[in-house]
Amino acid sequence: MAKFKLDDIDHQILNMLIENTRTPFTDIAKKLNISAGTVHVRVRKMEEAKIIQGSSLTLNYNSLGYNFIAYVGIFLEKTSQTQFVLNRLEDIPNITVAHVTTGKFNLFVKIRAKNTEHAKNVIFKIDDIDGVSRTETMISLEESLNDKTRLMKSIFEEM
Amino acid sequence: MAKFKLDDIDHQILNMLIENTRTPFTDIAKKLNISAGTVHVRVRKMEEAKIIQGSSLTLNYNSLGYNFIAYVGIFLEKTSQTQFVLNRLEDIPNITVAHVTTGKFNLFVKIRAKNTEHAKNVIFKIDDIDGVSRTETMISLEESLNDKTRLMKSIFEEM
Amino acid sequence: MAKFKLDDIDHQILNMLIENTRTPFTDIAKKLNISAGTVHVRVRKMEEAKIIQGSSLTLNYNSLGYNFIAYVGIFLEKTSQTQFVLNRLEDIPNITVAHVTTGKFNLFVKIRAKNTEHAKNVIFKIDDIDGVSRTETMISLEESLNDKTRLMKSIFEEM
Amino acid sequence: MAKFKLDDIDHQILNMLIENTRTPFTDIAKKLNISAGTVHVRVRKMEEAKIIQGSSLTLNYNSLGYNFIAYVGIFLEKTSQTQFVLNRLEDIPNITVAHVTTGKFNLFVKIRAKNTEHAKNVIFKIDDIDGVSRTETMISLEESLNDKTRLMKSIFEEM
Amino acid sequence: MAKFKLDDIDHQILNMLIENTRTPFTDIAKKLNISAGTVHVRVRKMEEAKIIQGSSLTLNYNSLGYNFIAYVGIFLEKTSQTQFVLNRLEDIPNITVAHVTTGKFNLFVKIRAKNTEHAKNVIFKIDDIDGVSRTETMISLEESLNDKTRLMKSIFEEM
Amino acid sequence: MAKFKLDDIDHQILNMLIENTRTPFTDIAKKLNISAGTVHVRVRKMEEAKIIQGSSLTLNYNSLGYNFIAYVGIFLEKTSQTQFVLNRLEDIPNITVAHVTTGKFNLFVKIRAKNTEHAKNVIFKIDDIDGVSRTETMISLEESLNDKTRLMKSIFEEM
Amino acid sequence: MAKFKLDDIDHQILNMLIENTRTPFTDIAKKLNISAGTVHVRVRKMEEAKIIQGSSLTLNYNSLGYNFIAYVGIFLEKTSQTQFVLNRLEDIPNITVAHVTTGKFNLFVKIRAKNTEHAKNVIFKIDDIDGVSRTETMISLEESLNDKTRLMKSIFEEM
Amino acid sequence: MAKFKLDDIDHQILNMLIENTRTPFTDIAKKLNISAGTVHVRVRKMEEAKIIQGSSLTLNYNSLGYNFIAYVGIFLEKTSQTQFVLNRLEDIPNITVAHVTTGKFNLFVKIRAKNTEHAKNVIFKIDDIDGVSRTETMISLEESLNDKTRLMKSIFEEM
Repeated sequence: MAKFKLDDIDHQILNMLIENTRTPFTDIAKKLNISAGTVHVRVRKMEEAKIIQGSSLTLNYNSLGYNFIAYVGIFLEKTSQTQFVLNRLEDIPNITVAHVTTGKFNLFVKIRAKNTEHAKNVIFKIDDIDGVSRTETMISLEESLNDKTRLMKSIFEEM
Repeated sequence: MAKFKLDDIDHQILNMLIENTRTPFTDIAKKLNISAGTVHVRVRKMEEAKIIQGSSLTLNYNSLGYNFIAYVGIFLEKTSQTQFVLNRLEDIPNITVAHVTTGKFNLFVKIRAKNTEHAKNVIFKIDDIDGVSRTETMISLEESLNDKTRLMKSIFEEM
Repeated sequence: MAKFKLDDIDHQILNMLIENTRTPFTDIAKKLNISAGTVHVRVRKMEEAKIIQGSSLTLNYNSLGYNFIAYVGIFLEKTSQTQFVLNRLEDIPNITVAHVTTGKFNLFVKIRAKNTEHAKNVIFKIDDIDGVSRTETMISLEESLNDKTRLMKSIFEEM
Repeated sequence: MAKFKLDDIDHQILNMLIENTRTPFTDIAKKLNISAGTVHVRVRKMEEAKIIQGSSLTLNYNSLGYNFIAYVGIFLEKTSQTQFVLNRLEDIPNITVAHVTTGKFNLFVKIRAKNTEHAKNVIFKIDDIDGVSRTETMISLEESLNDKTRLMKSIFEEM
Repeated sequence: MAKFKLDDIDHQILNMLIENTRTPFTDIAKKLNISAGTVHVRVRKMEEAKIIQGSSLTLNYNSLGYNFIAYVGIFLEKTSQTQFVLNRLEDIPNITVAHVTTGKFNLFVKIRAKNTEHAKNVIFKIDDIDGVSRTETMISLEESLNDKTRLMKSIFEEM
Repeated sequence: MAKFKLDDIDHQILNMLIENTRTPFTDIAKKLNISAGTVHVRVRKMEEAKIIQGSSLTLNYNSLGYNFIAYVGIFLEKTSQTQFVLNRLEDIPNITVAHVTTGKFNLFVKIRAKNTEHAKNVIFKIDDIDGVSRTETMISLEESLNDKTRLMKSIFEEM
Repeated sequence: MAKFKLDDIDHQILNMLIENTRTPFTDIAKKLNISAGTVHVRVRKMEEAKIIQGSSLTLNYNSLGYNFIAYVGIFLEKTSQTQFVLNRLEDIPNITVAHVTTGKFNLFVKIRAKNTEHAKNVIFKIDDIDGVSRTETMISLEESLNDKTRLMKSIFEEM
Repeated sequence: MAKFKLDDIDHQILNMLIENTRTPFTDIAKKLNISAGTVHVRVRKMEEAKIIQGSSLTLNYNSLGYNFIAYVGIFLEKTSQTQFVLNRLEDIPNITVAHVTTGKFNLFVKIRAKNTEHAKNVIFKIDDIDGVSRTETMISLEESLNDKTRLMKSIFEEM
């Protein structure tokens, strides 16, 4: 992806979308004194260049009663089962992130649950997948930071 | 947040927004045979009930050259330094998530970097924060899953 | 259990029972200048509200020759065996506490035994349960504190 | 405490007290067809022989909203601080048990708290004690067993 | 073994034997101005009281080319195999000490070998015993102390 | 020590001394049909060749009430303190063996004590030595083997 | 370095140099039926393209008495000391490889020594460097493979 | 190999070959004012004495795109499989070094790969070998030192 260069207009569009993904293109156009069509074209180009991929809804998990976060390290019986187990993990909606990792774990996942009891059930579901030999859980006492906007701005500033 | 109940219309609105946060309210209205005003009212209510918090841009980190992910466990010299260190971590944009954790680490963070060399620099920045005594890094060989839509749908189905 | 409120009389009754569970209600009544019937009613209400559950005998384990305490972490072959193994653990009277835990162990139990030799036999009984793959033992050199009265008082003060 | 022998009457008295510590001596006397005075004498003897130490109230921690249990391993800066730190730990009512241990920890304590947030505060209080260098926490997903009556019966059967 | 009391003569005999087990009883007798028969009687009494068990030859392992010492922790597949594996370990003369232990290992042994290559062969023999699942080896860089005479003197001083 | 060769007579002398270090040379001489002088000469040669170093008394630690064995891993603040700490360890008679080791510990020692309480005091003495930063203790549940005669015979057979 | 393409002649030259770095260019030329000048040009091009860097002597460490290999993990007091410590490590010739690493160690080095005693001295030199807080050593029982020719061939085959 | 003595001429030859293995013997001869034949004889003697073994090509792995280095610790199911697994490891050219080790791993290997993705594939190949039960990977953030010339000089200086 080496060569795509962002100009000043692109930067301003991106900053507004980072702040609020739902900002209508007409609002962006007005702020930047350009036509809405231009905004459209710019955004489409950035999508085609695979810079922007889409947008996602942000929930308030705390107010929804989902304030229990844990990271679970998974030991597999055989690495050849990696893909099979990953597919089973995808069936558990409380797993929002999954990695193949170095170090002592084969897989490493993040789960969101309502409370200790709920987390226990999610962990037991993972433990019961064929090919999983053992898991180790680390519980988050507080999610102090969950913010990609700083990274996005830093990436775009380099382009 | 115990008592908020979602009806069928709410569910359909949420599903469309989960699929694409930028779907204009007029499109949603047309699909559901209701007025755009109704969509507005419904969404505002869900925002006021702190169910929806906002929306965020999704980047294609791979095509942007940021395909190195690592988790870093941080040991502090003293727990009383927790808040101070968290503030310093916020100054490093490559840290997208930070937790206070149980287990052997005091803090646990996720970083995104371009490559091994870049990751080393980010880790060294963490190590150089006052109050940080040591770090341990686990590197992701593959981010196999990073998807909150399954969880969102599962949460809304219960409401 | 959110709403039960304790008044001053309740607090005084609880303090006397915490000090000595066997204090006769007539003694409590005399001290508080109320009728024994009132004490009865108050205590029953607190039992019905599931605040008080019962009372238990306290032994002097040291003078009984049971001064060897160990904590045993248990690794299971499969988490699906959790309930089965917990039932077997219940058959070993020297296990006084058992937890399903996060972290590296599946189960974590406290044992009281007479001495090293006796503890070895208890640990071997645990190791021989079907479904137990391995155990790790941590031995207490001194039980410096075993006192729930401070917690009880702290809980009641908040009510 | 080698030589104290329990006879059949002693065993029956102990069984009734284990079942319910508050059983009045007159009830015990009636059941066993002996005088209340005899019960008194027997119990006092067992107290003097340091077999029975006292009795304690049992709360229903779940219904009181205290269903978060964790074990915290404590590393000290110097073992000479052991007694000092134990005294500070006694000031935290949520710590119900504390041990000096072998293995990697210097001290090992059990805490009861209301929830993750509350537990974090208790752990931070421990971390802030002078002489504590680090802590590691293991969270209980379920207290499957907390029962000393089986041990008591087993001990008395041998006497 | 509580009651055996050593008098001054016993102490002097023991000190001379600790210094050199082969000291003839006639030499001891002469030094202490008692008869050789008295020395005999005293030593036999201490043997009968199970204080002294025997004597053992001390080799100079370094000059014999056996200066490689390692400690090997052994994980068993099942604790029920403990006695079987201990019997197999006894067939390996390079294992001079073996313990059943707490902590992460089931068994813990000390080996003396000629060099790295020789130690590898001994470790492989252990690994090949049925029921041994894994071993971990810690190598001694220097045996700085191997002396039981200080302990012996300390024990006898208390008697 | 490469070249010392043992002949058949040497082997028979060694076997008798291994069995009982105190066997008088006259008894050995009689059994082997050689003069006591020859036995003397042979033994002196083996001592001069640094094959035999001496002999040591064997106590029955169990009957002496010293049946608590533990291994203690010691972390130093700085390796430069190794010799200083080794000298302090020598002042504690309950430490019978001490090694400089590879792996996670700097030093690794074996202790014999009377019971848990006694062991705690010995461990605290180690912890209080200047330069010791932390210790980890592994407790022996049973000393299943403590026998150097098998190794001695195996070494002599090769010579 | 994406674009450098090797043709068949290059491959044959490389194979001969991998087999024996000291093969004279005239020998290579003769074998391949080309002029020595061509060999020179080809090799220089590969050097300029930074494919070949040079050549190194291979010693027989075993016959030189250097058959003790260990890997040493180094914990630093502060990461900011990394470069300083690396410079000190370079002064110790027995360290042949040094890495900045992820995981629990800050630095990870390979050492070659004559024997246990020699290795201990090298490790102590590392421990004594300012900024090094602790080391952990893993000893090689056998260097089963040390061969870069397979990798070289595999790399060149892809070009 | 105890007795081979290097004289001054040998040292100078070795130094020049260490600096550049490909230095022609005629150049060496000219520099040292001796005949090329003498150089030949000296080098052959050092080869026969097994001091010099050969020479190897040095690649610039960075410019070849192979800048990802990792160390992989391998746990075997049974030590008896050691040789079998070592043979399989030899089939993977990215493994340049392999050791049988003490400590927690059975085998320990070094791998060179192009990037995270490539390394993952190499690690998965290792994991898929029969007899391998699990692996743990430590990634190098920087190869700060890879130099055997300092060791070579140090070895030769002692001869």
